[in-house]
Amino acid sequence: MSDSLQPIIAFDADDTLWPNEDYFRDGEKQLIALLEPYYKGDNLLQHLYEQEIRNLHIFGYGAKGFTLSMIESLIELSEGKVTGADIQRVIDIGKSIMTYKIELLPGVKETVETLRNDFGYKLMIITKGDLFDQESKIARSGIADLFDIVEIVSEKDDATYQKLLIKHQIDPQFFWMIGNSLKSDVLPIARLGGHAVHIPYKSTWAHETVTAEHAAEHNYFELTDISGLPILLEREIQGL
Amino acid sequence: MSDSLQPIIAFDADDTLWPNEDYFRDGEKQLIALLEPYYKGDNLLQHLYEQEIRNLHIFGYGAKGFTLSMIESLIELSEGKVTGADIQRVIDIGKSIMTYKIELLPGVKETVETLRNDFGYKLMIITKGDLFDQESKIARSGIADLFDIVEIVSEKDDATYQKLLIKHQIDPQFFWMIGNSLKSDVLPIARLGGHAVHIPYKSTWAHETVTAEHAAEHNYFELTDISGLPILLEREIQGL
Repeated sequence: MSDSLQPIIAFDADDTLWPNEDYFRDGEKQLIALLEPYYKGDNLLQHLYEQEIRNLHIFGYGAKGFTLSMIESLIELSEGKVTGADIQRVIDIGKSIMTYKIELLPGVKETVETLRNDFGYKLMIITKGDLFDQESKIARSGIADLFDIVEIVSEKDDATYQKLLIKHQIDPQFFWMIGNSLKSDVLPIARLGGHAVHIPYKSTWAHETVTAEHAAEHNYFELTDISGLPILLEREIQGL
Repeated sequence: MSDSLQPIIAFDADDTLWPNEDYFRDGEKQLIALLEPYYKGDNLLQHLYEQEIRNLHIFGYGAKGFTLSMIESLIELSEGKVTGADIQRVIDIGKSIMTYKIELLPGVKETVETLRNDFGYKLMIITKGDLFDQESKIARSGIADLFDIVEIVSEKDDATYQKLLIKHQIDPQFFWMIGNSLKSDVLPIARLGGHAVHIPYKSTWAHETVTAEHAAEHNYFELTDISGLPILLEREIQGL
């Protein structure tokens, strides 16, 4: 079977199709409120971030590892004085991040429907995090049926994308990746010779940020709103 | 592309290629020791099991959800009196389950090498649990290169296997699944018209057990030792 010559449009999910980062940041705020009686320092977010990064090689990305890291931070910063009830509150914060109602970002449904039904493009989701949690979110989104392929991965780097392109026999020239993270969605694809469209989300986790200089070395498209995607793709792919 | 006419031999990983259940059961024993000062009841394992099942629709299978469920049990059974240090011990038990040294079960390496190198079969791993944790275990196993396809899934039921067979264009007649769980590895494949080989492990998680009557309704092979697999497959596939 030869490489597909049909355009494949792949979307990141979290903060591209629906909000996600907000729930993690809100969980951090609740953690800080819980810590109030135990800890007076002011570098809480930095501590939590460092805890998450320290645990990344054991937990990977996702809400369950985030919850376990929040618990470790609470124990450490309270010097072990935290109550069982407060730990339970952290677990409940984690569960709320794993079960929130998925509300699509503005324009997502119409855009995905247009690309699939009017343009006839093959559509993919490529998302990273906990397998079960990501599957659950995609199922809850109500638009799962519009995507031909769903790939849930543990890391979004050049090697991962390269493997996916080979697995699905996709020529990078015909591959478009749409996402909010320069580090995870845009730059790897630009480096591999594919096309990337950056649609920034209002907040980005510190771990996903890249410097402007680093980003400027690569070519990619930037949109403020996903609704601009059909016109961009029409122009670039169909030359209209 | 037509369905593959070449035999595909798929293996479950945990407790089929390497021990896993032992680490979870050992974690439970450590949890019971931690509970000693807080709780005098005797239905601890039952409580933990029920907690896990209650959380399954949020956490899915795997070591991270297991750790979070252990923490919830410890909080509840200690009536919130558990110390931060003891909760940290539970997280450390969880981390040890996510990082243990993979030692292949007896005969695994030789058997897999024979099937791949001498018989030329296409080999797969189909395993369920946390994506990152399962990828890490496969990487740590030292035999990842012997498998053509690795599939990490959130559930191992008829629907999942059906999807995998379609995805990889495999005719069930040519598909063999080898595993220790009747519920997750053997019966779904028997129902789908594929071939299944049950290799019992010394311990099985309560959630994975099926009744003898239920199992007796289906045809599958049973081996006490994975080393018998090449002879079985030679006889059944090649008619030797």
